[in-house]
Amino acid sequence: MTAFPSHPFDFHAVHSEDDDHFHEECGVFGIFNQPQAAEYAVLGLHALQHRGQEAAGITSSDGKSFFAHRARGLVGDTFSDPRIMQTLRGSAAIGHNRYATTGEAAAHNIQPLFAELDTGGLSLAHNGNLTNASFLRERLIKDGSIFQSSTDTEVIMHLIARSLRSHREDRLIDALSQIEGAYSIVALTNRALVGVRDPLGIRPLVLGKLGEAHILASETCALDIIGADFVRDVDPGELVIINEHGLESRRPFAAQKQRPCVFEYLYFARPDSAWHGHNVYDVRKQVGEELAREHPAEADVVVPVPDSGVPAAIGYAQAAGLPFDLGIIRNHYVGRTFIEPTQQIRHLGVKLKHNANRRQLDGKRVILVDDSIVRGTTSTKIVEMVRAAGASQVHMRIAAPPTAHPCFYGIDTPEQEQLLAHKYDVKAMAKHIGVDSLGFISMDGLYRALGHEGRDKDQPHYCDACFTGEYPTVLTDKER
Amino acid sequence: MTAFPSHPFDFHAVHSEDDDHFHEECGVFGIFNQPQAAEYAVLGLHALQHRGQEAAGITSSDGKSFFAHRARGLVGDTFSDPRIMQTLRGSAAIGHNRYATTGEAAAHNIQPLFAELDTGGLSLAHNGNLTNASFLRERLIKDGSIFQSSTDTEVIMHLIARSLRSHREDRLIDALSQIEGAYSIVALTNRALVGVRDPLGIRPLVLGKLGEAHILASETCALDIIGADFVRDVDPGELVIINEHGLESRRPFAAQKQRPCVFEYLYFARPDSAWHGHNVYDVRKQVGEELAREHPAEADVVVPVPDSGVPAAIGYAQAAGLPFDLGIIRNHYVGRTFIEPTQQIRHLGVKLKHNANRRQLDGKRVILVDDSIVRGTTSTKIVEMVRAAGASQVHMRIAAPPTAHPCFYGIDTPEQEQLLAHKYDVKAMAKHIGVDSLGFISMDGLYRALGHEGRDKDQPHYCDACFTGEYPTVLTDKER
Amino acid sequence: MTAFPSHPFDFHAVHSEDDDHFHEECGVFGIFNQPQAAEYAVLGLHALQHRGQEAAGITSSDGKSFFAHRARGLVGDTFSDPRIMQTLRGSAAIGHNRYATTGEAAAHNIQPLFAELDTGGLSLAHNGNLTNASFLRERLIKDGSIFQSSTDTEVIMHLIARSLRSHREDRLIDALSQIEGAYSIVALTNRALVGVRDPLGIRPLVLGKLGEAHILASETCALDIIGADFVRDVDPGELVIINEHGLESRRPFAAQKQRPCVFEYLYFARPDSAWHGHNVYDVRKQVGEELAREHPAEADVVVPVPDSGVPAAIGYAQAAGLPFDLGIIRNHYVGRTFIEPTQQIRHLGVKLKHNANRRQLDGKRVILVDDSIVRGTTSTKIVEMVRAAGASQVHMRIAAPPTAHPCFYGIDTPEQEQLLAHKYDVKAMAKHIGVDSLGFISMDGLYRALGHEGRDKDQPHYCDACFTGEYPTVLTDKER
Amino acid sequence: MTAFPSHPFDFHAVHSEDDDHFHEECGVFGIFNQPQAAEYAVLGLHALQHRGQEAAGITSSDGKSFFAHRARGLVGDTFSDPRIMQTLRGSAAIGHNRYATTGEAAAHNIQPLFAELDTGGLSLAHNGNLTNASFLRERLIKDGSIFQSSTDTEVIMHLIARSLRSHREDRLIDALSQIEGAYSIVALTNRALVGVRDPLGIRPLVLGKLGEAHILASETCALDIIGADFVRDVDPGELVIINEHGLESRRPFAAQKQRPCVFEYLYFARPDSAWHGHNVYDVRKQVGEELAREHPAEADVVVPVPDSGVPAAIGYAQAAGLPFDLGIIRNHYVGRTFIEPTQQIRHLGVKLKHNANRRQLDGKRVILVDDSIVRGTTSTKIVEMVRAAGASQVHMRIAAPPTAHPCFYGIDTPEQEQLLAHKYDVKAMAKHIGVDSLGFISMDGLYRALGHEGRDKDQPHYCDACFTGEYPTVLTDKER
Repeated sequence: MTAFPSHPFDFHAVHSEDDDHFHEECGVFGIFNQPQAAEYAVLGLHALQHRGQEAAGITSSDGKSFFAHRARGLVGDTFSDPRIMQTLRGSAAIGHNRYATTGEAAAHNIQPLFAELDTGGLSLAHNGNLTNASFLRERLIKDGSIFQSSTDTEVIMHLIARSLRSHREDRLIDALSQIEGAYSIVALTNRALVGVRDPLGIRPLVLGKLGEAHILASETCALDIIGADFVRDVDPGELVIINEHGLESRRPFAAQKQRPCVFEYLYFARPDSAWHGHNVYDVRKQVGEELAREHPAEADVVVPVPDSGVPAAIGYAQAAGLPFDLGIIRNHYVGRTFIEPTQQIRHLGVKLKHNANRRQLDGKRVILVDDSIVRGTTSTKIVEMVRAAGASQVHMRIAAPPTAHPCFYGIDTPEQEQLLAHKYDVKAMAKHIGVDSLGFISMDGLYRALGHEGRDKDQPHYCDACFTGEYPTVLTDKER
Repeated sequence: MTAFPSHPFDFHAVHSEDDDHFHEECGVFGIFNQPQAAEYAVLGLHALQHRGQEAAGITSSDGKSFFAHRARGLVGDTFSDPRIMQTLRGSAAIGHNRYATTGEAAAHNIQPLFAELDTGGLSLAHNGNLTNASFLRERLIKDGSIFQSSTDTEVIMHLIARSLRSHREDRLIDALSQIEGAYSIVALTNRALVGVRDPLGIRPLVLGKLGEAHILASETCALDIIGADFVRDVDPGELVIINEHGLESRRPFAAQKQRPCVFEYLYFARPDSAWHGHNVYDVRKQVGEELAREHPAEADVVVPVPDSGVPAAIGYAQAAGLPFDLGIIRNHYVGRTFIEPTQQIRHLGVKLKHNANRRQLDGKRVILVDDSIVRGTTSTKIVEMVRAAGASQVHMRIAAPPTAHPCFYGIDTPEQEQLLAHKYDVKAMAKHIGVDSLGFISMDGLYRALGHEGRDKDQPHYCDACFTGEYPTVLTDKER
Repeated sequence: MTAFPSHPFDFHAVHSEDDDHFHEECGVFGIFNQPQAAEYAVLGLHALQHRGQEAAGITSSDGKSFFAHRARGLVGDTFSDPRIMQTLRGSAAIGHNRYATTGEAAAHNIQPLFAELDTGGLSLAHNGNLTNASFLRERLIKDGSIFQSSTDTEVIMHLIARSLRSHREDRLIDALSQIEGAYSIVALTNRALVGVRDPLGIRPLVLGKLGEAHILASETCALDIIGADFVRDVDPGELVIINEHGLESRRPFAAQKQRPCVFEYLYFARPDSAWHGHNVYDVRKQVGEELAREHPAEADVVVPVPDSGVPAAIGYAQAAGLPFDLGIIRNHYVGRTFIEPTQQIRHLGVKLKHNANRRQLDGKRVILVDDSIVRGTTSTKIVEMVRAAGASQVHMRIAAPPTAHPCFYGIDTPEQEQLLAHKYDVKAMAKHIGVDSLGFISMDGLYRALGHEGRDKDQPHYCDACFTGEYPTVLTDKER
Repeated sequence: MTAFPSHPFDFHAVHSEDDDHFHEECGVFGIFNQPQAAEYAVLGLHALQHRGQEAAGITSSDGKSFFAHRARGLVGDTFSDPRIMQTLRGSAAIGHNRYATTGEAAAHNIQPLFAELDTGGLSLAHNGNLTNASFLRERLIKDGSIFQSSTDTEVIMHLIARSLRSHREDRLIDALSQIEGAYSIVALTNRALVGVRDPLGIRPLVLGKLGEAHILASETCALDIIGADFVRDVDPGELVIINEHGLESRRPFAAQKQRPCVFEYLYFARPDSAWHGHNVYDVRKQVGEELAREHPAEADVVVPVPDSGVPAAIGYAQAAGLPFDLGIIRNHYVGRTFIEPTQQIRHLGVKLKHNANRRQLDGKRVILVDDSIVRGTTSTKIVEMVRAAGASQVHMRIAAPPTAHPCFYGIDTPEQEQLLAHKYDVKAMAKHIGVDSLGFISMDGLYRALGHEGRDKDQPHYCDACFTGEYPTVLTDKER
């Protein structure tokens, strides 16, 4: 979601300095033709919680009216009150998990959004980011639209509201034809559940079935949790309309070669999810195996930075024939609101989340496997911790290429100037982080791990702009 | 505020059955050119708390940006956090107290509202009710406006946003020229505070001055609390623009004879407030005196139903030469959320708030003075309580004419079918309530208490539609 | 309750500077043989809310087990949750309202307290203050008792726990025989409700009946709210045991002449309550009449400082033949937590609660009637406000003698050095407060208002120590 | 902690049915001679959060006074408010994490407890469980002690309070000489930090040093987080007194052969902790290796039940030469308060926390490694889930012997009748759970993994009563 200038009703969330990762901004879920639809939505959103922990919302419909609840906090906490769930009536529902960037934590930014159109109500939730949202927002304000949130999702809502088409689905298509960027959308009318994925398919969206009910979700793990079967990916550029007559597929946009986000495989998605035929855990393990081939090292043990580095570390260890051990232990009780440390104890930093398992590291040559390096702050602290625990050598291996470019498609990335890979080459990065050696998976290695022969420069199979700077869409707002 | 079909993000408040009064729906306050403007707004809203206890909001501006906080609850509770007050920067602010009707208690309905226009931000708060809000809302939705609240205030915001005029004040005038009904509005841009009152002046709005600062408020008691001087009423149909150059008065609407709400004098307003030259306490006491003349009774004591019946009872007792005594004691600790009584003890009802002071009632002929009778539920219980305390006779005197008609101008009134004066004549009402005699002030008596010779049928000085059914504006929504 | 050195688990409440009154510290309620006993206790505590607004607690029993809930806040707020009420099972219950002095607001200080004795459980609530609590506490700690609260009530609990008697009622008597001071206690075992009042009857306690149920309460207004009949006062020194066999009265202590607190009549109690044959409203009105005779003044209007000054002002006006008018309006929405005012607007102080009704004061000679003067801070501000509203003369009349001495019997009074009547004579007080004349009711006048010929110096009928300094009990802790 | 009959001020927590593990009940931490001691305590408790998530408390002292805060919830949440931390002054502090069994979640049960003794204040926190607490409690109540909590820790407090010795440390020893069972205690006076471990050393307690500060903690991971050095285990039966003169060790109890809890190694402790020379992760991996030797299986992949089964699964896979893969993914966002599922979707149960990673399981012969089987409910669901994901065979291996006996030493275990190993032999358990084969580590294998030759039946090195039923202490309460 684009960070518009803060609305006066916004309040500001503060993010931890030590949280040195790219962040997915959203997860979406929709279900149609299922009694207790909202309860299924809660479960689906719970399975997608890793895609956004700031807030969650659900809109349901009983075919006549709409019911909604939106709240900050984890799904399991905010939707645990039976009195709330009883109000979310009906056999159709959509839901949304939200990751908030600074300054956007206000309640009115929580999705799904809702608009009463003259053709009836419409609720909509969106994962992704528009690259011409500012441009459209300015035009809409000039035309008299009032924005209540600072989300780009509301731009889509206003385009729908102003469309002159007479059916809600046509209005949605009309709106989508004006936007650029990445989006996977679920929308709910009193009659239909709609899912749509941008023409490049940058953000994921899958289709499932549970008895007579159809399900849309960002990841397959949200199908698993409710026992639904995976049917297929929603195709890039496809719009599916699910109503009492079943599922109808439309292709309102010109065909383009798909470019799904490769970073979903590397970091965001849950290891037990799958799209486009690839299981996420498998991909990460394959990357680890490629990494072992590309960047071998004389070592005694392969240690993951938990939890995200684990699958690649397993792959690396198996390919390298080295023992895999948990040399770093993660404390999962770290919430969003840990004590503001005083200056004196701030240096403890990383230990709130990670601790060296000294016995597995002391005197050993360690291959440390992590998922990515963003600003390098966490990596530096982890390496320091591993050395303090007695490691004689630290060889860092990164299960992603260097991330040198910001994302404009729904990922929260720091300013480009803060990206370590933007400032340094690998050698300088190794020195900065304090490792004996540093190796990133190559672009070709990454594509091999995904079953290709390497990266096809003319027609890459994925959006890999954060590594290459090759953005697959126009960037209207950026260029203005 | 019009009760539109509930928005799915609304939640529902439940009102006590025993709260048998008409209810004011809002109070507004604005201040310009005063450092710590928001703190003054908090005090002003506190003084206006009787006009709405459900929620409150403040928007401030420092000349560049806008800052806002809105919350459910009493002003003194929700704005008691210094961390919130520190965020409300700037030397101009507007505020709003809100009384919520069922189904509209959601956060997005709390005023002031805010819109980012292409000509800059505008925040607005409204006391009153539009009589063509539904009509306009439908038209606006057809044109693609998205409503986020179920308030009629948002209709005004959308009309402003869609106006083709280039200055914000002109856009406001443009919007006002399309609405019908009652409104006292305060609005804030980054450069000006604007106040406006509908052409009939149905809802009150006064102007004050504190040093260099100008103040707008629903009642004079909000001037008193901050030590400001009362300057004058804002005239019906007048629009005042207060900015760095001072105060400019405009009369954008055709002149009409004013019709301020007479019920403000009788019940809503604080006794220490004044408009149009009349002190509220004085008016109520005069009504009591008229009532003594119109409906005398042989009795031992005059007892008010506290607190609202007190001034009229003092007037009655003085005119009748009878002792005035507190024969009913009110418990002020009754909040909104008292225990849901079980069936068995629900009959205790009125005693949560009122208790008979037996020693002042036992064996006495009692004249009971109350401000009005709405559904009659409370009156019946009070009379029963007074009799149980030993009163030998109960003569009820009401300091208002019978309320037989609903209000469409910002007062929360029950369905007409529920109004006792709609169902019964005075004699039948007396029997229903269980009193030995019942007397209402006459229409002419009411006007005499306000300094007139009686009610001028052709040109009444006040809006008295709740008594007479003569509505001074068109009622577009009702007629559709 | 004695303010012991703060327990480390206490947290600190801050009281408003402007709250310039003596404060009652507690109200108690008990009911036996009534299904839904806890709901009745909630209503009783609600009626007694004026005796303590900080916190409330209820213990109930079903004859076998005990159930309890204690919480900060108003009764109507904290006991409004049906889920809590459902847990308070049984046909017997006791309850307690608490006013907290600084430093004692912690949850473990909320009464009723509970102890599991070897003879069964016992819960107890206490209104009053022991004058040898510190002495006993030290002795108990030396003997190995662990104190969990900083209340003197816990001293009683430990004395009960350590008593060698075998019945719970005898243990209570054993404990009471060791304490000095003022106490009205309700206690609950699984078999009986016990009420006891100290030998001088300093704090009130009344007995009521509702069908088969017996009720104990601090004031009669708590009987009225549940429709119970007033039976009689519990006698000073009397202990009543209410169980399945009915009510048994014991007199375990040597007979003494009763000395009920006269300040209960003047300020603490609700006007609709009565003890020892005197209705509180009546007494206040009589005091006003005496005051009119003792301290007449040439004036145009009698104006009460609301709410507590109203009955005396009515009495004064009737005796003096002067009009009574509400020249000061009170805002009842002032809660405990109003916004911390900045220095600049702190001078607004009193206006948060009171506002002058200018029209009733302007150009008039005003007799201002208040209930008492404590530190004089509020009086000074009120007089200033009344003069600013145009009063040509202000004659203050106080419906109590000068309060020159602290209370050790359960009333929260400031340090003696802060009491205006301790520092100044009446003339100097008048000058300090800024009035044209100042008159206090005389001690004899006060006793006359209560139906006596005057104060019998050898055997005063009431505890009037706060006026006279004649304390009717030993003050062990103070003397140590 | 013993579950005494519920105190009426207790409220009831509800535990998930699906949480099918033994539960540690507490973690303790103490620090002396460190400015900002309380902040270090927060970090230490955060590292020990796995030992109790229900509530946490800290008492600090500045050498004169004591300061305390206790709250329900995670350490990082409840101690994140700087205003709370500022109140916890001084350079010495103790803290406690609490796991609550049903019915004991009330605030007054949160440790550390505090008592004001005539020799000064004493605060105390306790991990473990007394086996004669009920006996002592009854005796103390008979003697007049009042219990405010339902914890056995309060028994220790009362014994201390009643001791006739004159120094607080001697009183503690006096108290400890009367109790039986398991305890690791940290206590704080205004002058000293005291740590003590029961004579058998059943519960852990380690000693650390950070500059001039001494630290006591349940596990070494609490030393790591603050950068402290591990010094040594506190010896079974040892009492250490840390004050301004340094550390003094006392052995007040007769020497016994130590019997530390073996289950700490197998499940409770964090993998990065160590006692008595054994790193927890190492032990678990060794158990996995032993398990591979004792219970081999023809299989394609070794899959852990995350997170606790991971180390043993790694050991098993390495010993068996089989690939290790994450065939089950754990959702770490499952909090305590997840939505109450309706009957219809309750069968989803285990999926809230675990999901099968189908790609790693489909068509494979799977060795599933878990830490223990308690009631078998979770195991049954996990096996079902793994089979539904396509596993052709499921061979379950448990990294603990069958748990057939309840623990009386501070572990929350179900009633013996609910323990699957109490009801069935291994074959029947395998059938019940639905696996192709089931293998538990043998008792001798377990001891071998800990570096012994096997279990010495006459003098076992550990408390293994939950496996063997051989309780190393008398069980006074149980026998009564």
